[in-house]
Amino acid sequence: MGKYQPPSASLTPRFAGIKTFLRLPHVQTTQDIDFAIVGIPFDTGACFKVGARFGPGAIREASTLMRNFNMNLNVDIFEYLSGVDYGDIDIVPGFIHETYALIEAGLKPLFDAEVMPISLGGDHSITLGELRSAVKRYGPVALIHFDSHLDTWDQYWGVKYTHGTPFRRACEEGLIDTAHSIQVGIRGSQYGSKDIQDSMDLGFEVITANEIHEIGIKETGRRIRERAGNMKTFLSFDIDFCDPSCAPGTGTIEIGGFSGYESISLVREMQPINFIGMDLVEVLPAIDLSGRTAYMAGNVIHEILAIKALQKKAST
Amino acid sequence: MGKYQPPSASLTPRFAGIKTFLRLPHVQTTQDIDFAIVGIPFDTGACFKVGARFGPGAIREASTLMRNFNMNLNVDIFEYLSGVDYGDIDIVPGFIHETYALIEAGLKPLFDAEVMPISLGGDHSITLGELRSAVKRYGPVALIHFDSHLDTWDQYWGVKYTHGTPFRRACEEGLIDTAHSIQVGIRGSQYGSKDIQDSMDLGFEVITANEIHEIGIKETGRRIRERAGNMKTFLSFDIDFCDPSCAPGTGTIEIGGFSGYESISLVREMQPINFIGMDLVEVLPAIDLSGRTAYMAGNVIHEILAIKALQKKAST
Amino acid sequence: MGKYQPPSASLTPRFAGIKTFLRLPHVQTTQDIDFAIVGIPFDTGACFKVGARFGPGAIREASTLMRNFNMNLNVDIFEYLSGVDYGDIDIVPGFIHETYALIEAGLKPLFDAEVMPISLGGDHSITLGELRSAVKRYGPVALIHFDSHLDTWDQYWGVKYTHGTPFRRACEEGLIDTAHSIQVGIRGSQYGSKDIQDSMDLGFEVITANEIHEIGIKETGRRIRERAGNMKTFLSFDIDFCDPSCAPGTGTIEIGGFSGYESISLVREMQPINFIGMDLVEVLPAIDLSGRTAYMAGNVIHEILAIKALQKKAST
Amino acid sequence: MGKYQPPSASLTPRFAGIKTFLRLPHVQTTQDIDFAIVGIPFDTGACFKVGARFGPGAIREASTLMRNFNMNLNVDIFEYLSGVDYGDIDIVPGFIHETYALIEAGLKPLFDAEVMPISLGGDHSITLGELRSAVKRYGPVALIHFDSHLDTWDQYWGVKYTHGTPFRRACEEGLIDTAHSIQVGIRGSQYGSKDIQDSMDLGFEVITANEIHEIGIKETGRRIRERAGNMKTFLSFDIDFCDPSCAPGTGTIEIGGFSGYESISLVREMQPINFIGMDLVEVLPAIDLSGRTAYMAGNVIHEILAIKALQKKAST
Amino acid sequence: MGKYQPPSASLTPRFAGIKTFLRLPHVQTTQDIDFAIVGIPFDTGACFKVGARFGPGAIREASTLMRNFNMNLNVDIFEYLSGVDYGDIDIVPGFIHETYALIEAGLKPLFDAEVMPISLGGDHSITLGELRSAVKRYGPVALIHFDSHLDTWDQYWGVKYTHGTPFRRACEEGLIDTAHSIQVGIRGSQYGSKDIQDSMDLGFEVITANEIHEIGIKETGRRIRERAGNMKTFLSFDIDFCDPSCAPGTGTIEIGGFSGYESISLVREMQPINFIGMDLVEVLPAIDLSGRTAYMAGNVIHEILAIKALQKKAST
Amino acid sequence: MGKYQPPSASLTPRFAGIKTFLRLPHVQTTQDIDFAIVGIPFDTGACFKVGARFGPGAIREASTLMRNFNMNLNVDIFEYLSGVDYGDIDIVPGFIHETYALIEAGLKPLFDAEVMPISLGGDHSITLGELRSAVKRYGPVALIHFDSHLDTWDQYWGVKYTHGTPFRRACEEGLIDTAHSIQVGIRGSQYGSKDIQDSMDLGFEVITANEIHEIGIKETGRRIRERAGNMKTFLSFDIDFCDPSCAPGTGTIEIGGFSGYESISLVREMQPINFIGMDLVEVLPAIDLSGRTAYMAGNVIHEILAIKALQKKAST
Repeated sequence: MGKYQPPSASLTPRFAGIKTFLRLPHVQTTQDIDFAIVGIPFDTGACFKVGARFGPGAIREASTLMRNFNMNLNVDIFEYLSGVDYGDIDIVPGFIHETYALIEAGLKPLFDAEVMPISLGGDHSITLGELRSAVKRYGPVALIHFDSHLDTWDQYWGVKYTHGTPFRRACEEGLIDTAHSIQVGIRGSQYGSKDIQDSMDLGFEVITANEIHEIGIKETGRRIRERAGNMKTFLSFDIDFCDPSCAPGTGTIEIGGFSGYESISLVREMQPINFIGMDLVEVLPAIDLSGRTAYMAGNVIHEILAIKALQKKAST
Repeated sequence: MGKYQPPSASLTPRFAGIKTFLRLPHVQTTQDIDFAIVGIPFDTGACFKVGARFGPGAIREASTLMRNFNMNLNVDIFEYLSGVDYGDIDIVPGFIHETYALIEAGLKPLFDAEVMPISLGGDHSITLGELRSAVKRYGPVALIHFDSHLDTWDQYWGVKYTHGTPFRRACEEGLIDTAHSIQVGIRGSQYGSKDIQDSMDLGFEVITANEIHEIGIKETGRRIRERAGNMKTFLSFDIDFCDPSCAPGTGTIEIGGFSGYESISLVREMQPINFIGMDLVEVLPAIDLSGRTAYMAGNVIHEILAIKALQKKAST
Repeated sequence: MGKYQPPSASLTPRFAGIKTFLRLPHVQTTQDIDFAIVGIPFDTGACFKVGARFGPGAIREASTLMRNFNMNLNVDIFEYLSGVDYGDIDIVPGFIHETYALIEAGLKPLFDAEVMPISLGGDHSITLGELRSAVKRYGPVALIHFDSHLDTWDQYWGVKYTHGTPFRRACEEGLIDTAHSIQVGIRGSQYGSKDIQDSMDLGFEVITANEIHEIGIKETGRRIRERAGNMKTFLSFDIDFCDPSCAPGTGTIEIGGFSGYESISLVREMQPINFIGMDLVEVLPAIDLSGRTAYMAGNVIHEILAIKALQKKAST
Repeated sequence: MGKYQPPSASLTPRFAGIKTFLRLPHVQTTQDIDFAIVGIPFDTGACFKVGARFGPGAIREASTLMRNFNMNLNVDIFEYLSGVDYGDIDIVPGFIHETYALIEAGLKPLFDAEVMPISLGGDHSITLGELRSAVKRYGPVALIHFDSHLDTWDQYWGVKYTHGTPFRRACEEGLIDTAHSIQVGIRGSQYGSKDIQDSMDLGFEVITANEIHEIGIKETGRRIRERAGNMKTFLSFDIDFCDPSCAPGTGTIEIGGFSGYESISLVREMQPINFIGMDLVEVLPAIDLSGRTAYMAGNVIHEILAIKALQKKAST
Repeated sequence: MGKYQPPSASLTPRFAGIKTFLRLPHVQTTQDIDFAIVGIPFDTGACFKVGARFGPGAIREASTLMRNFNMNLNVDIFEYLSGVDYGDIDIVPGFIHETYALIEAGLKPLFDAEVMPISLGGDHSITLGELRSAVKRYGPVALIHFDSHLDTWDQYWGVKYTHGTPFRRACEEGLIDTAHSIQVGIRGSQYGSKDIQDSMDLGFEVITANEIHEIGIKETGRRIRERAGNMKTFLSFDIDFCDPSCAPGTGTIEIGGFSGYESISLVREMQPINFIGMDLVEVLPAIDLSGRTAYMAGNVIHEILAIKALQKKAST
Repeated sequence: MGKYQPPSASLTPRFAGIKTFLRLPHVQTTQDIDFAIVGIPFDTGACFKVGARFGPGAIREASTLMRNFNMNLNVDIFEYLSGVDYGDIDIVPGFIHETYALIEAGLKPLFDAEVMPISLGGDHSITLGELRSAVKRYGPVALIHFDSHLDTWDQYWGVKYTHGTPFRRACEEGLIDTAHSIQVGIRGSQYGSKDIQDSMDLGFEVITANEIHEIGIKETGRRIRERAGNMKTFLSFDIDFCDPSCAPGTGTIEIGGFSGYESISLVREMQPINFIGMDLVEVLPAIDLSGRTAYMAGNVIHEILAIKALQKKAST
């Protein structure tokens, strides 16, 4: 059994207690843990609806409904893993460069200890800071990027750092091994015909939402696995990958996304992949009235934790 | 034509009038009726979000949008059936055993008269009271249970009567003929690997949500029909069987459920089954802002009424 | 490049500025344009939930999130088209006949100039006024009607003009060439068995939602194309065609509709059709809390604009 | 004790049961009753936000929280009064003249029997129909009109029958004895300087909101009593008399209204007045998310019922 | 400076971090602290709208907006006080007697150490458990009870333990020194004329809301102080004391309550009183959409903390 | 009559048409106008809830309910004034210095032409940009600042430009003649005892909310007038000056503010003041569900326009 795990849901009502992710202990340690939940409540990078700074709190609160055993993958997460809620990184709202430095420094102890940080955004601009931190320990990483948007645009309104540009910046900074990287779920209106081509020119494989709807979840999963191979991989999951019907609480919804069943099933396809970090971004609680977007986010993480548990089980 | 039926929607606007189910007459009779809508506004059994005590009112209000002819099954319900809105049972909020006695007594006149009660919850704990009442007239019944949760746990926090335990209690009390009973739609995180096994050990067949997504609605329907056979059958429909995108207004949503089309289609598959009672539980209006969860609930009942109508048509 | 087009989204934040459709210039011209967005904020015809008078404003606001390039059809809309936001027609709330006269007169300059009006409702009663105007220029038109309801009922409460009757009135007035017309997506409870038959007796082809779910989007598309042929065609899209999970903000939701992916894909199937006008009706902002119903509406129009752009590209 | 009264709230939970006003019996009788609650769900007269057709249902639901004893006036209402929930009048949405005829006819049996109808709107246009009915029995009546708006405008958009014109029409039809009538609470922006003068020219006394804030509730009450004298009086209460902070769920809010305490206190000041009918209009549930506007409406009626009870007590 | 205090709001954004009350450390200690925030998420006692189990979480989240210096009382709370967020007591939803035992035991270490527990409800039934615990240390206490309801009813539906009965039970159990106790803010409809008399017969002084509106906040404060004297006093603050305009998110609103200014000013009047414990109950987040009810609750506590700080300052 | 004015509300329904402020023409002119409405949708400066970038759109939409005649001041605004909706300034979300330059440049043509800009925020950080622009034309201006917060803090999290610091920066830059400036409505918890002293040390007069509640609106108005004298004055109105009950839709509510009546009355007290510009900031539509915060904002502006109209009337 992991050292740090949630209290028993049959002793303590799940709605009770301080709201940490899965009701895990809130400890800032890197010892005896496999993963750490880290809030990064920065949303200054948002170019439309804003408010993802409250995302970490909402995902934590929603996550308390979940229990330890993942039925899809037939594993009790905390039989193999230990994890903590590490709290939030003290970002600087309104100042992205200062924030990037804080993210990079804030995650360093975790990466150094080879603990997997699971970051709760915040908007998608934060990933650049996370990748900078990851690369210090692991060198350029493979990126699996679930999103309805490419986020490889060059600039908005003359500025280069927004939630629509992190992956272009990351490429320019040499943080991503694009030959093993893939963008999954792209859809919606674009600025121009070259948007997707630009991503491919940066080296990414791109699977559009329409393509996924045609080839199916399993084949999409196969392509992701093939792309990532056994590289050290960072997973960046923008909740707007999911359809607005399943994840209405996000700032730039796009029509034609994926149901909860499809989304979770696709996450599960990534079972053999070697994740060294992940984030879950763009949950906006103010427009997520029933809390189900946050719960969707929590379930994506639950599936990743189950994968990590199986991997640890297999390795021991 | 049934003695009791809704007023014509082309004479009276459907939004007008006292809010009874389908705008049926509110009469406490067991005479000349095939079914009776019965509110059971008890939600003390809830272990997470709470408020299903307002479910009966919300389902009634939403139901007024529906008309008499069921296009899916090609039948005018009230050409064959007569039904009333029986009102609510006066439960005792906060006190489950007192409430069980009131539910059992409250439904007795209906079961005695072989009128089908269609109960509007309330949380899922109420089903135990309903089954106790049903068994007095019919003996142990087959149970078809649509839900994302098993509700066969043994206890929570040391107590045995909650909305997560009614079917274990019902088995222990001999109310269910589990050899003809089935639980359909199970998904989400579990307490442990033995949760589903426990249900099977009690005698239930269990079809998980993942399995339904794989085998399809028609095959799932076939298995339900095969399981129930021609037994006297009680249908218990927890609205969280449906996907949160279709039924957000419920207390313990689980990702990966079923669309409205899938849900209603599956209900329709049960056409030959001999229902002696049903309930529709766990609608929480306070988080069902557009009222569509309640409307989904109403449509499930509409489909069952159409089945009953066809059965009566065939029998006459 | 079109004379009138949106400002660049990489210069001006999309959330900034006066809320016109796609942030197009608000000009009341018929010159140098291919289409005109026209608000018709009339909702007196509604027979259940009401408030579509605020639909045009909400669709405009939601539409600002969209960009110019349609990825599905691989075309930059404004490379080929020019269009304006024409503003609203000054309807008379509470008085349908006066309003019909205003709609008919209001659209006349556009039809006369063979500009395609894209009307934002308002409830579905407005289509009668639009068709009266269209017919003055084009004679009886083919109608493609996406909806969960037939809207060919004869009367409600003794009155003949509501949002449930426009297409019967249009047939009686000779506005529709029903031999090339089709109603798509019909579902939900009916008044009686003859409702659909009535539509077919008027000459419409009817494809129910259940049938679409069975035959698929592509085959449905084929049937629509076959039906409309190369006739001058009016498209009337009631947002309740979409499933309530995707379009909760409408007044008479029906269970079992179509996802965003299905809806947009089906719209795209109509590529060769010769549209001379369209409307998008029944968005009710007061119950569309996250604005995604309005955004769905905007995306349907985006797809039609992309079709028009491709047609213009092909013709030049 | 009254023949018809609510069930005991200490036996039946107030949230249980069919939602009638105060959970009164739903009976369409004029016998043995002092008052009848009548829903008039017509909102076609609204000139801005719309949806008061759902007002009667919402007021009924909210009213179930109230108990029988009015502490302010120290009287148990049902010790002296008997009353029923008469249901709704079947209005014709979208058609105001047809509706006026139905209102007039619908209330006639009550006025004939000298039962006080308490009508739940619906928008303010309905009052004209009510007054036409009242006058048949009583001749021109005194009107006490609580509102932020005068509703004596002559026309909107060329039409004469809206929720902004009923009292001008009523004057023209000779339904109101304006010499004993008063408009209370007027505020907000106006069309022009002559708006209030117009009302005074029709014979009304007008007390603006600013004036009430200055002279206080008691003095305002004195002027109302003085104005009405012992005339047969009709009370028309538009919920937007109350401040938006206390009654947000209405279609044309105006800043600077009255708190719940002020509103109820002012109602109480009317103790000696001889009410022969009243209405409570303009509750829009779709924007009354916590239900407190409807509850405010219910409390206004509770206060009037207490006054009636005291009057009956005094007269017996 | 207190040992335990919030992080600096000028270093860490107030929206960041795990949501504890005022962002205080979450430590289960009784050492070196003056007060402890304790969540008691029990709402089984509610007789109308339910959901106060989520109250503690919502109050914590809202409280993060507050800073340390109380301007009204001119004191920096944490210059004099040390406090922790003690977490929640593991209550048993649905079972009130089991829960009372857990509350009593859970608060015992705090009372034993003469630390002031500040309990976040939960519904008002929890106060009985708190008083049982307090009395073990202090003997019968004075009670200052802010509420719109008396909560001294004898029973509902035949049961004696609900959120409407705790103070009668407490009197019967000898927990309250009613000669020094007072109920403040009573209003709304009652079951009967004897409701208030019953409270007075139990020994309470009762000040109705109407009386407060007449005599003013300062005189009300004087009477409270006079009543409590220098007794060890427990403060029970039901958020429905405040007007629904200021605290809409509660289950049994009553019209005619108190503004935020009035409420906080009245709390401040209690400066000399010797509080040994308090609770803040009946916040229902599901209907508190903007979070301002929870923020009101937090401000009431802030004022009490400021009073405690001043008392400590004076005593040192 | 002004050259630019709203369309007649008795010809065009107020809910119809493109949503400009008061439905004024959207023209970017400085000719023939007295005032210009300018949106500044920047919210990067927010330190708690965020989303004021949608404020201008929401205020415009809400403002359409208002008519031209101000009853409080007995003046038809557009009999004397001409004004336009100038549209929005294209700010750069996420980058405050770039935005300040754009604001300064964007307002320059208006200040140069001595047109009064009425800016719709956005968060309070924008005022610094506006003042920089104003000063170019007028030199240091008197500031009347309505707010619950001082916004004269020096820094947050090490950064100097947020919505909590604009007035300190403005003082440092010599933009404000603090000897004629006043901050009105201050309340809520503070960082420390010196917060208010700091404002006074900068030269501001400060009137706290508590003080206003004590001295009353008229005396507060007198002090504001006395302070500003006949200086060229800039008005900055943070909507959180109003009580959360009246303006819930803002990011940092504080308890104990002012009702709509009090707020508007106080604005009216400023009749003789010589305003050269104003802003209305911090409306957050995502949490302003009924739109009444935006409507409050619109009414504040209406009152200022009425004052301007009276001043122009007097001067001609």
